Amino acid sequence: MSVWDEVPNLKNKSIPELKQLCDELRSKIIDTVMKNGGHLSSNLGMVELTVALHYVFDFPRDKIIYDVGHQCYTHKLLTGRCQKFSTLRKLGGISGFPKREESVYDCYNTGHAGTSISAALGIAKARDIKGENFNVIAVIGDGSFNNGLVYEAFNSVSEINSNILIIINDNHMSISPTVGSMHEYLEELSSESEGNAKKKRHETIFERFGLSYDGVYDGNDLALMIDKLTCVKQKLRERSVILHVATKKGKGYLYCEENPQETHGISATNGAVEYSSVLGETLISMARGDDRIVAVTAAMTPGVGLSEFFTEFPERSIDVGICESHGAVVCAGLAVEGMRPYYAVYSTFLQRAFDQIVVDICSQNLPVVMCIDRAGISGSDGETHQGEFDLSFLSLIPNLTIAVPKDINEFRKMLLLSSAFSGPLAIRYPKDGYNAFKGSSFEIGKWEIMCEGNDCAIIACGERMITLALAAAGHCAERGVSCCVVNARFVKPLDTEVLEGLKQDLIVTLEDNALIGGFGSLIDCYYSETRKQIKNFAYPDEFIPHGSVGELISKYGISVDKVSEYILKNANR
Amino acid sequence: MSVWDEVPNLKNKSIPELKQLCDELRSKIIDTVMKNGGHLSSNLGMVELTVALHYVFDFPRDKIIYDVGHQCYTHKLLTGRCQKFSTLRKLGGISGFPKREESVYDCYNTGHAGTSISAALGIAKARDIKGENFNVIAVIGDGSFNNGLVYEAFNSVSEINSNILIIINDNHMSISPTVGSMHEYLEELSSESEGNAKKKRHETIFERFGLSYDGVYDGNDLALMIDKLTCVKQKLRERSVILHVATKKGKGYLYCEENPQETHGISATNGAVEYSSVLGETLISMARGDDRIVAVTAAMTPGVGLSEFFTEFPERSIDVGICESHGAVVCAGLAVEGMRPYYAVYSTFLQRAFDQIVVDICSQNLPVVMCIDRAGISGSDGETHQGEFDLSFLSLIPNLTIAVPKDINEFRKMLLLSSAFSGPLAIRYPKDGYNAFKGSSFEIGKWEIMCEGNDCAIIACGERMITLALAAAGHCAERGVSCCVVNARFVKPLDTEVLEGLKQDLIVTLEDNALIGGFGSLIDCYYSETRKQIKNFAYPDEFIPHGSVGELISKYGISVDKVSEYILKNANR
Repeated sequence: MSVWDEVPNLKNKSIPELKQLCDELRSKIIDTVMKNGGHLSSNLGMVELTVALHYVFDFPRDKIIYDVGHQCYTHKLLTGRCQKFSTLRKLGGISGFPKREESVYDCYNTGHAGTSISAALGIAKARDIKGENFNVIAVIGDGSFNNGLVYEAFNSVSEINSNILIIINDNHMSISPTVGSMHEYLEELSSESEGNAKKKRHETIFERFGLSYDGVYDGNDLALMIDKLTCVKQKLRERSVILHVATKKGKGYLYCEENPQETHGISATNGAVEYSSVLGETLISMARGDDRIVAVTAAMTPGVGLSEFFTEFPERSIDVGICESHGAVVCAGLAVEGMRPYYAVYSTFLQRAFDQIVVDICSQNLPVVMCIDRAGISGSDGETHQGEFDLSFLSLIPNLTIAVPKDINEFRKMLLLSSAFSGPLAIRYPKDGYNAFKGSSFEIGKWEIMCEGNDCAIIACGERMITLALAAAGHCAERGVSCCVVNARFVKPLDTEVLEGLKQDLIVTLEDNALIGGFGSLIDCYYSETRKQIKNFAYPDEFIPHGSVGELISKYGISVDKVSEYILKNANR
Repeated sequence: MSVWDEVPNLKNKSIPELKQLCDELRSKIIDTVMKNGGHLSSNLGMVELTVALHYVFDFPRDKIIYDVGHQCYTHKLLTGRCQKFSTLRKLGGISGFPKREESVYDCYNTGHAGTSISAALGIAKARDIKGENFNVIAVIGDGSFNNGLVYEAFNSVSEINSNILIIINDNHMSISPTVGSMHEYLEELSSESEGNAKKKRHETIFERFGLSYDGVYDGNDLALMIDKLTCVKQKLRERSVILHVATKKGKGYLYCEENPQETHGISATNGAVEYSSVLGETLISMARGDDRIVAVTAAMTPGVGLSEFFTEFPERSIDVGICESHGAVVCAGLAVEGMRPYYAVYSTFLQRAFDQIVVDICSQNLPVVMCIDRAGISGSDGETHQGEFDLSFLSLIPNLTIAVPKDINEFRKMLLLSSAFSGPLAIRYPKDGYNAFKGSSFEIGKWEIMCEGNDCAIIACGERMITLALAAAGHCAERGVSCCVVNARFVKPLDTEVLEGLKQDLIVTLEDNALIGGFGSLIDCYYSETRKQIKNFAYPDEFIPHGSVGELISKYGISVDKVSEYILKNANR
């Protein structure tokens, strides 16, 4: 391994030496991801292409932006991060995504799909304004290619007029198999051999946008990639170029090659019940009796638990691809015609539909149910993937009801109630469920007093925080301080009947969300004229890095100890 | 006019009668917009096409979605809203945009660009699930056509597989002339005559997406439009169709035809100084001495005051078209390479870049300055255009500094300081400035005590609220209650030194923003443990309809009277 412990100079190596290096890189990636979790298949597919890029171009002088960024492991290993690679995705270790903070070889942080071409255009424009001379490369998968940002960027290639290289890394997959016409078009190009008369006859779509198109080539053929990149580097002096390559997701590891969807991301199993599986099961049982129910997602069908639904109800299932904004508007359209769309998306990706949730769904007050998975801290993917903002960016939207189930049973009940609800509804939950608290029936907007107590009221939302609140209340009770614990299963509207009824002068709020604009701030605002003492436990005003969920929650001071300590110190007994 | 006072049946009319109707409609639109303000040119261009649509299709059984919606006046006049048309854009009157609440003929509310095709697909999919039979039509301008949502929707036309009609209304304009390659492509199609060999030879881009393309036809030729729509209606039984028509923005009113950009929207002049003109002048003077400054906007160059900048610095000016997300990422790319991008966008449209502001700009902590125009209540365009959410959706984002100038002089100073600032900065302001308060020098993050007082502290942000705070303080002083007035010119970070120093037990906050997640909630949160009494004046949790700025602000209880009344009642003298 010593050859690439520091930043190796690949330019003086022979093809056989580089192939040997590829094998070593591939082993290193497999070993590490099997231990730490991470994106496996996408990284295995990118080994030869990345080595070829480093052979042909001059990083960090040349700039490379990896779209989404979950295919950058080889890049990291070739740029001085081999020793640290064992810390991948661990708290304090290196990130699974490009990070400027980590290395000068990472020029632009990514995490959400479709941004690489826009960013490359910005960087290239800055280069041209400054009169400098380097190459700017965006590497983008065919899954990201569905996203509207790509089209917006294409549309301004000629306007911005600064040359860039776009490499389409075509492996026919997002997390799910890629959908949509653009994908079919890429397939069609792939099926035509190089120099084919048909392709020559008509312009490619890309040429319409002022981009020179070249492809399709085998991205796992190292020598070919070196050859093609060398040619493209010349052409780039004249104009922007698209190089279309096909790679095999999971390349070199048979299990991954055969199961690319399952091995897109690897994480350790932990015995929890996943909220997503409850969503899938419940929605199927509801849809059997209710023809209005339609499931919509954005390239994450298995992740949000909808695979079986899609199989049983293909006519009422829509995967819009990585197009979260479009998906939200489609849901609004379905709802105006009387359907009951369930839009299942990860919290961090729902951010991309913010305007459409405001204007299309909520200002029209339409009965769209947003099922928000991976809410709160999501863990090892780090700051671009944490779901700590949703309560903040959703609670500001008029007409929206926001539910946060205390456990999987309550989640199921919420889903069952949701199809009769007349306005927009968001239900947010983490990936894993562990508890089944004693239940109580409920109606929408109503909270639950889980235990009584006079010295302090702890108002908490979501399974993680209810668990913590009950433990802190127990801890305090042992020390003679009695706490009421309230399950704020609806963050919006607030249950003002419960809030009016709380006679405790000391209130503590707990949430798996950012402090600013979150649940606690709604409570502060509600009581602002009453002179109560309120302490909000929530995440501080900073981006939350990668690490395990448990580590991160305690890192930010949300723990039984800290909560109890505050209450014991401040309660007037 | 009596012929179309109620919903007229156009189907039994002759072409000459319909042309006569078009003339009457056009006069009515001109008369009303000249009195009430509104979108003039876009509506004048749409008269014949709308009459033809109503002749050929059966509304409200058939559904029509107007993209953006600022071209729907003829549609309103033909669907029972002629009598009420004089109330256009007035408080309590009819809206300038489609509104389901107003009429069954408005099936889907719009306001922001690019949503119509996604919504049409959702509506058509619902129709097919229900086994019903009606036509769904999206009418979209060439300006909206740049937006990525359009591409996302195209990309799922074959996946969703429900037939719709898309009418491209091509008038070569957004608010500004349309930019970008897609526009050039539309131009190219326009320049080819019908049945031209070249067009036949290659497939149009649209056919790649599974859409049958037909055009370009003169959209102001009533008989031709009736003919073409009748054909298309047949074809629609088989597949989705794009009908490409060219209309003349401002058609039939010479001044508009010659000045389409100036007459896109008409509003009464009021003698105010526009913040946008200060932005333009200041940025020009800064850019003359600083090569790093780049101006970026999204199809609203004159509206945000950048026309002269674009003329003087074409190499450092980027209009990305109606692509707010893409624009934000381009800014991030410029910033990583050392540029100082100024991204000038209206508040309501900045919502569309929320995810990119979070991930691309703020998580990378890049020095992008967002100049947010039309913030707070913007008036007569109504709920889809009010800027009352920006303080809420921006303050939740880590690393972001948010400035709210108290007047135009302070705005200028903020701009001058901004180019030396090292992180992301948002400056939000309304359209019109009226005041020049006594100034004081300042540094970023520091507030200003505008007057002292012991009984209450009024903390206000922005010109409108500072004006109100000073008036309320004066009113209270006359009644023996002394108020301190604080100019919170930075909403984030809070000036904790000033907040710690406020000894008053009664705090009043004033902001031109929604209550939830806004400035007041930050103050509530800051003081939550201190048992102060805090009253937040801000907009309630509802969408704010159209009306004049002054009317709307008072409607929501933000007035000198209400603020004074609260203080006089609650201050402990």
